[in-house]
Amino acid sequence: MGGMPGATDQTLRPFLWRAQKMFPDREVVSRTHEGRERYTYSEYGARVAQLANALAGAGIEDGDRVGTFCWNHHRHFEAYFAVPSMGAQLHTINPLLPDHHIQYIVENAADRLLFVDPSLVEKLAGAYDEDAFESVEQFVVMGSEVPDTPLENVTDYESFVGGEETDYDWPNLPEEQPAGMCYTSGTTGKPKGVEYTQQMLWSHTMASLPEAGLDLRSSDVVMPVVPMFHVNAWGFPFSTTAAGAKHVYPGPSPTPEDLATLIEEEGVTITAGVPTVWLGLLEYLAENDADMSSLERIVIGGSAAPKSVIRRFDEEYDVTVTHAWGMTEMAPLGTVANLKPGMESLPKEEQYEKQAKQGLLVPGLEMRVVDDDGEEVPWNGEDFGELWVRGPWVTTEYFERPEANEEDFEVPAGGASGQSADEVSGVWLKTGDVVTVDPEGYVKIVDRAKDVIKSGGEWISSVELENALMANDNVAEATVVGVPHERWQERPVAFVVPTRGTDEDSLKAELIEMVEDEFPKWWAPDEVVFIEEVPKTATGKFDKKVLREQYDDQSLVE
Amino acid sequence: MGGMPGATDQTLRPFLWRAQKMFPDREVVSRTHEGRERYTYSEYGARVAQLANALAGAGIEDGDRVGTFCWNHHRHFEAYFAVPSMGAQLHTINPLLPDHHIQYIVENAADRLLFVDPSLVEKLAGAYDEDAFESVEQFVVMGSEVPDTPLENVTDYESFVGGEETDYDWPNLPEEQPAGMCYTSGTTGKPKGVEYTQQMLWSHTMASLPEAGLDLRSSDVVMPVVPMFHVNAWGFPFSTTAAGAKHVYPGPSPTPEDLATLIEEEGVTITAGVPTVWLGLLEYLAENDADMSSLERIVIGGSAAPKSVIRRFDEEYDVTVTHAWGMTEMAPLGTVANLKPGMESLPKEEQYEKQAKQGLLVPGLEMRVVDDDGEEVPWNGEDFGELWVRGPWVTTEYFERPEANEEDFEVPAGGASGQSADEVSGVWLKTGDVVTVDPEGYVKIVDRAKDVIKSGGEWISSVELENALMANDNVAEATVVGVPHERWQERPVAFVVPTRGTDEDSLKAELIEMVEDEFPKWWAPDEVVFIEEVPKTATGKFDKKVLREQYDDQSLVE
Ligand SMILES: Nc1ncnc2c1ncn2[C@@H]1O[C@H](COP(=O)(O)OP(=O)(O)OP(=O)(O)O)[C@@H](O)[C@H]1O
Ligand SMILES: Nc1ncnc2c1ncn2[C@@H]1O[C@H](COP(=O)(O)OP(=O)(O)OP(=O)(O)O)[C@@H](O)[C@H]1O
Ligand SMILES: [Mg+2]
Ligand SMILES: [Mg+2]
Repeated sequence: MGGMPGATDQTLRPFLWRAQKMFPDREVVSRTHEGRERYTYSEYGARVAQLANALAGAGIEDGDRVGTFCWNHHRHFEAYFAVPSMGAQLHTINPLLPDHHIQYIVENAADRLLFVDPSLVEKLAGAYDEDAFESVEQFVVMGSEVPDTPLENVTDYESFVGGEETDYDWPNLPEEQPAGMCYTSGTTGKPKGVEYTQQMLWSHTMASLPEAGLDLRSSDVVMPVVPMFHVNAWGFPFSTTAAGAKHVYPGPSPTPEDLATLIEEEGVTITAGVPTVWLGLLEYLAENDADMSSLERIVIGGSAAPKSVIRRFDEEYDVTVTHAWGMTEMAPLGTVANLKPGMESLPKEEQYEKQAKQGLLVPGLEMRVVDDDGEEVPWNGEDFGELWVRGPWVTTEYFERPEANEEDFEVPAGGASGQSADEVSGVWLKTGDVVTVDPEGYVKIVDRAKDVIKSGGEWISSVELENALMANDNVAEATVVGVPHERWQERPVAFVVPTRGTDEDSLKAELIEMVEDEFPKWWAPDEVVFIEEVPKTATGKFDKKVLREQYDDQSLVE
Repeated sequence: MGGMPGATDQTLRPFLWRAQKMFPDREVVSRTHEGRERYTYSEYGARVAQLANALAGAGIEDGDRVGTFCWNHHRHFEAYFAVPSMGAQLHTINPLLPDHHIQYIVENAADRLLFVDPSLVEKLAGAYDEDAFESVEQFVVMGSEVPDTPLENVTDYESFVGGEETDYDWPNLPEEQPAGMCYTSGTTGKPKGVEYTQQMLWSHTMASLPEAGLDLRSSDVVMPVVPMFHVNAWGFPFSTTAAGAKHVYPGPSPTPEDLATLIEEEGVTITAGVPTVWLGLLEYLAENDADMSSLERIVIGGSAAPKSVIRRFDEEYDVTVTHAWGMTEMAPLGTVANLKPGMESLPKEEQYEKQAKQGLLVPGLEMRVVDDDGEEVPWNGEDFGELWVRGPWVTTEYFERPEANEEDFEVPAGGASGQSADEVSGVWLKTGDVVTVDPEGYVKIVDRAKDVIKSGGEWISSVELENALMANDNVAEATVVGVPHERWQERPVAFVVPTRGTDEDSLKAELIEMVEDEFPKWWAPDEVVFIEEVPKTATGKFDKKVLREQYDDQSLVE
């Protein structure tokens, strides 16, 4: 008080408080290694307090990092509120990453304590490295017993929290306090650490609630299938709590059957995850009976939602796909492909077309789309450019990665009223995604900036070529990368996994012809290389850098 | 960048940007002194830029205050975004205040330029005082001509903005930048200035959008009847823009007929205002044909929404009343009386009962209810206490009112990690409202702390007594105040305006008996005083301080 006017800081605490006090009987349900658990927000709040007391007892202090190596379940959800609300920083680690990335991440973040799932203890022990894990003092296994493991200082969660007080005097944190941390997926290089302040998580939560965000209501039953180690499960643990809605966590490696059962038995209204999960569910539903009548919406993101998936869920199950785009750097929500008023009277196919785009920027953010010369690209649905975003939940720097900061952020020329460079607002994140924007403002991702092929001054979308190739029945998988070319700068080369027994020569001719038919002639790949499998990253995205490295020395195109 | 992690500042700019770019054809409609105006967000954005250019041309700089003395119309709405987004501070002045309050407010805020409605020029000229208005360099009349007036340096708005560029290079403002200012209504004393930072307005806007706030969608058509000089018309000009919804402004002193016509012709889905407005509309609708079928919700606040109004709108027009409570100090949204999941199956009368409470605290805020000893009262729907609130859009101080700061705010004992007193987060606003909270978390305002009557260690709600008295057919109006009492500390005295021709003695006996029947015996007023009219404030609230002063010397109760 005194000096500047202002209000109380933005922190996660009020969301926990509100759910506990105003929706004490609403449920948190969780599939775990041990079965299905269920309790109320009121009990949840008590356990969150117990966990904070246990962490304080274990010496965790304001500003310390606590890591998790876990699937989606209630104990992980307890850590989601306990760790940041006591002033520490929740660092979610992707257990699917290769060992050397896990080592880099734990060492870089200097986690003091790690929570680990029973089924992931072995993986973690395998990745364990004395130097990289030097900061880690204790492991807590997410269950009620400790499995056999070479790891030292291991407790089980229930003993860790059991007997602790069910109250905690949550501190008044400043909004700049780091609350979370997550590393990017490493699709384009070494994973980069992103720190989320209390304010960023508060803002992201508030932005997730309205229609123009993810549209959460207290009557909803929300099941995030997207892992809690992927950008806070897209913020659902926080936003569902803020809405006072019911949580359903699908636990370790859920199968399509597990998901269908939980939807049916818990009355899930909203679920969320990457496209492959929903392809799997569609396959399961085609063969098995399951009651999907409670389900209203599936939020799909992480990769592009195929139009066919959007169509099938609408036609066959009356479920709306909410296609969204985001990034680790933005906590992650960026755009949502909601239809605008009036569009519900368009022909269904046109509606699906809009929904298959990545959508409209969420209120509170700003964007621009710029070409190679830094000029803004017109919103005509055709011209490409790199998407830049900024806003209260978009980071303005990576953790200890000055070279990546240099590359991925753009500081505007001047600030307001004589601010120093450090205080300048309005920093843009250069997303590395290449997009078109249509006249209605719908963003469509056409490629990654690192994957887009620059040929003779024009851009070729590797993603569009891949989709066209994969539409061929004799193609199991395909990816397209640009390789250096003396005259044209870069030219596309296709890597194709043919289905068993296909004649490669005739398939090649067929594919080239098809591309020449559908796209400008010069988009046709200069070469089609047949391979056995497209290499993938830990999160299942095509790993083009591996292909590029692999074919670096071989002059595929002259 | 560098140093602390974080994101881009929270300002109003992205809301304007989004509406302009993504909803360019959505409309802003406005009833004005000159007729009905209509244009699109795209034209709106151009005019906002013109206004900012005109203000810059008139010498308005970063940090300057610009006042408005206006009803609800498109030009006022243009000032809502232009003034804060250029870095200046929008100060909305209530033209219904007595002249001495207007003088105090203009002098205290030191406005450099005043916008004034044609129909309010005379009122403003009447309040004009050379000393108090010393800071004011220019008046701009909200129209296309200047009426006859003794005021000097007067331009009309259309000449002021005409010819200016339709682009403006909106600065990157820090979120602590003061963006708005509004004075409290002065019900309990001299109006107190509240400054809104960019961050507070951003937060309030984000909190208004979801279901748990005011539930605004892009398909909505929003008509704020609450004046734009009352706490930013409850934030609707900002939140409606953020949602990409259509705006309808009802213009100067709208009659019930004006409102009905606008609802019908513009397809209004949501409207908002104080209870008396809706009583007026109900009366009008009972006598006249009007198509209310587009209308879905009426947000009622400022004073308690009577259950009868809630019932009639639901039963007769299928319109849901969204009862909300707020304060100038909180921009203003605090609680909203939404039904929780499951409550829609309660008997209608019980639903109305819940909706007639002030409701559930909005996500992002925290509250406590404390008794005279500073202890939290139980949430049992019966125990009274003063409501304290805090959160990102709740102010932590008044403008230049140290004595009021002392009284109305509570700084918590210790901050986090060695913060100085100035940086301490978690400051509570003591609202001055006395409430109960039921086990479901619904807040009910039972009185003002200054009006509640403290008798023999117990609290008596003056509001509940008033409502009971006014339910009698022979009572036109009634108010109850506490007067000092030697033995009981305070005792209630009722001031009653009888309907014409009523026998005062028998009415008095009847009223006392009725109160003794409905309430604890000791709630019965010690005295019933018949008066001709209950004095009212500028905003139509009962002015109890006048009554108290008037009866100060007369020992009404021994
Ligand atoms: N709906 C979507 N459609 C298409 N692509 C998407 C969608 N959602 C996310 N993406 C892609 O995922 C990226 C964000 O993923 P994430 O933050 O997990 O790391 P990454 O970009 O894959 O890895 P790294 O940044 O380490 O290279 C986006 O930049 C975009 O390329
Ligand atoms: N829905 C409601 N039901 C009952 N009272 C309400 C409601 N909404 C607002 N109020 C009353 O209005 C007050 C806020 O009004 P406002 O900020 O305009 O100034 P004021 O409190 O009337 O004046 P001052 O603070 O100058 O005495 C609240 O504190 C509360 O007493
Ligand atoms: Mg990335
Ligand atoms: Mg007040």
